[in-house]
Amino acid sequence: MFTANGSYSQLHGNYLFYEVGKRAADFAAAHPDAELIRMGIGDVTRPLVPAVIEALHSAVDDMSRAETFHGYGPAFGYDFLRQAILERDYTARGVDMDIEEIFVSDGAKCDVGNIQELFSQDTVVAVMDPVYPVYVDTNVMSGRGGAFDEKKGGYEKIVYMSGNEENGFVADLPDGRVDVMYLCFPNNPTGVTLTKEQLKRYVDYARDNGALILYDSAYESYISEPDKPHSIYEVEGAKECAIEFRSMSKTAGFTGTRCAYTVVPKALTARDSFGNLVHLNDLWARRMATKFNGVAYIIQRGAAAAYSEAGSAQIMEVVSDYMENARIIRDGLQKAGYKVFGGVNAPYIWLKVPHGDSWKFYDELLSQCHIIGTPGEGFGAAGEGYFRMTAFATRESTIKAMERIQKGSV
Amino acid sequence: MFTANGSYSQLHGNYLFYEVGKRAADFAAAHPDAELIRMGIGDVTRPLVPAVIEALHSAVDDMSRAETFHGYGPAFGYDFLRQAILERDYTARGVDMDIEEIFVSDGAKCDVGNIQELFSQDTVVAVMDPVYPVYVDTNVMSGRGGAFDEKKGGYEKIVYMSGNEENGFVADLPDGRVDVMYLCFPNNPTGVTLTKEQLKRYVDYARDNGALILYDSAYESYISEPDKPHSIYEVEGAKECAIEFRSMSKTAGFTGTRCAYTVVPKALTARDSFGNLVHLNDLWARRMATKFNGVAYIIQRGAAAAYSEAGSAQIMEVVSDYMENARIIRDGLQKAGYKVFGGVNAPYIWLKVPHGDSWKFYDELLSQCHIIGTPGEGFGAAGEGYFRMTAFATRESTIKAMERIQKGSV
Repeated sequence: MFTANGSYSQLHGNYLFYEVGKRAADFAAAHPDAELIRMGIGDVTRPLVPAVIEALHSAVDDMSRAETFHGYGPAFGYDFLRQAILERDYTARGVDMDIEEIFVSDGAKCDVGNIQELFSQDTVVAVMDPVYPVYVDTNVMSGRGGAFDEKKGGYEKIVYMSGNEENGFVADLPDGRVDVMYLCFPNNPTGVTLTKEQLKRYVDYARDNGALILYDSAYESYISEPDKPHSIYEVEGAKECAIEFRSMSKTAGFTGTRCAYTVVPKALTARDSFGNLVHLNDLWARRMATKFNGVAYIIQRGAAAAYSEAGSAQIMEVVSDYMENARIIRDGLQKAGYKVFGGVNAPYIWLKVPHGDSWKFYDELLSQCHIIGTPGEGFGAAGEGYFRMTAFATRESTIKAMERIQKGSV
Repeated sequence: MFTANGSYSQLHGNYLFYEVGKRAADFAAAHPDAELIRMGIGDVTRPLVPAVIEALHSAVDDMSRAETFHGYGPAFGYDFLRQAILERDYTARGVDMDIEEIFVSDGAKCDVGNIQELFSQDTVVAVMDPVYPVYVDTNVMSGRGGAFDEKKGGYEKIVYMSGNEENGFVADLPDGRVDVMYLCFPNNPTGVTLTKEQLKRYVDYARDNGALILYDSAYESYISEPDKPHSIYEVEGAKECAIEFRSMSKTAGFTGTRCAYTVVPKALTARDSFGNLVHLNDLWARRMATKFNGVAYIIQRGAAAAYSEAGSAQIMEVVSDYMENARIIRDGLQKAGYKVFGGVNAPYIWLKVPHGDSWKFYDELLSQCHIIGTPGEGFGAAGEGYFRMTAFATRESTIKAMERIQKGSV
């Protein structure tokens, strides 16, 4: 008799952004005339840049002729893209990396969700709180979360490293032993990022304790302060303890185009549950070769164009434009009397909810101002009392949203 | 201390097609002048059809303008594609299906590999032998395979349903209790397919025993005999016991373009390991919403065009062309004195290796005729003594390959 994986039943509620979207859709259906401004899901609104569009068209043409047609690609990405990533994202920043350490995929969400397949079943997982729900949910689904503990406001087996106003949303190191730490900087949802010294503390902890760091730097292109690290490998020793995730989604507007990559250094070794010495690069290679078949050739050509000189300049102009939105949101919310965090090195603004109930605030903002944001509670217990807004709406909508918030209504 | 998943160490050898490709690449490097004919990995060679190319260009243009730009898409695929799948692949064949039962993805390999996440840990998995290695490998990687047993020629916990000449490579039902059966028809690698009556026997077994069938019909568009079922749902009762996987890869030449779908009927219920009654449709929806972010908008537009009237006619012309290759291979091999199977309802031809050693035959064919095929042993113990050739090369290469084989050399 077939028996299903029971761990799914331990999940507490729906996937956050599904729930956020569903409530908004319900509201829209009931109020067809409402002009909703979407600042909830972190989705971009500016079109793909000309260099990318040109490369996509050219790649489509390649697929129309037998001589230039591309069937199955290399499992870990075409070298033209891996090489561009290597040079632009690492060599140019003084980080030495090997092309075989870079695995191209269809999304950082996928990689961040799938990486736990490399952990032994009894792995103790630590996450920051508040946190991007995928880190937690995927570990719960594979049985490493345990039951949801209402009192704790989290899963019994997960170690939460709480961020709050006192620590500037940069969590302290875990108290007890943890095997794996998910870190995300610039942070989703709080928008804060680390100094190199702060990041070094995590790396040192990982090396001292044989822990593995999963470093999600999907928002690194939004860093505006020059002293902040973009990659964890800017910290010495990180190659022996960290995997890094990057995405084209927010960098090049690829949320609906799907391309990302993951770096698994060859220096990253561990014992497996049978005591064998293993290289995580080999394990991830095997995972990708067996359960994935590469990103579409057309898409990889588009992604590579974002790394060209013209493409880089074009996407950085878009990033600057979103960051101007972030500035407008920070200012607008402050003028409306809110306390705000983030928005300087990240496209996210994290505001303190005056009455402390973030889902209630979600509903109020939706019904009174027709603005969709994301309640902090959705990111974990430490997120309650806060609310996330994104800088990805159009300029016009962003300005209008701030006007509505200052007025308290549409 | 981080400990890695030890189940990866239980994998027996490399991923098959990685090994096949590596040996061929080594040979090519040592013999730079050899004109290799690739009939190993089932990769297509004909370009995308005009209707698909046109739709891809148009979708790229959509992405270049803010008004028609697409960010994150619906998690399970755009309705324009799901609706086309529903109508063309099911309604048109008299199979009633709901759009919410169709999940669009970036590859059947991914879905077939990820589906085991829905199984409880102690699930007893049955596969046909010979078999597409992804079914087995992904269960080994998640700890459901156990150690490789050299004597058995397979993993200790996996139940193998052996195909052979006597049963026409249509395996008997499992002897003991199994929870899950992976079936693939038209079959990879043997090229044989089932009658509706034969398929009904599996469905009846699954219903009688509470087992789940995972039905991989990636090659259904190659069925030429009108009485053969294309979908398992053509058999009554299959919706209560089967998940079906479909791919655009071989149907529309999408091996390098990446689009597929999986059907999880709402009628499919099970108990989970805590005894909860669950709908597998809900579980798969949760899996996809949490660990996946949809297929690129551009690619889904291209896929939908393959379902248009013009697109369908164009892709079926390509399929017919490949099937003419299959006929040429069947005839050519028979003329050369080989015993062959398949190639009538599938793009695969399965030949009997005279001396019985399939890796030796691989090496001989490569070194003497400069032809790459796939050794049957790579598909499982019951595949030893056989060899797979694909019909996806160009017509010219296919004819040349048969000439070389008949001659016994290049």
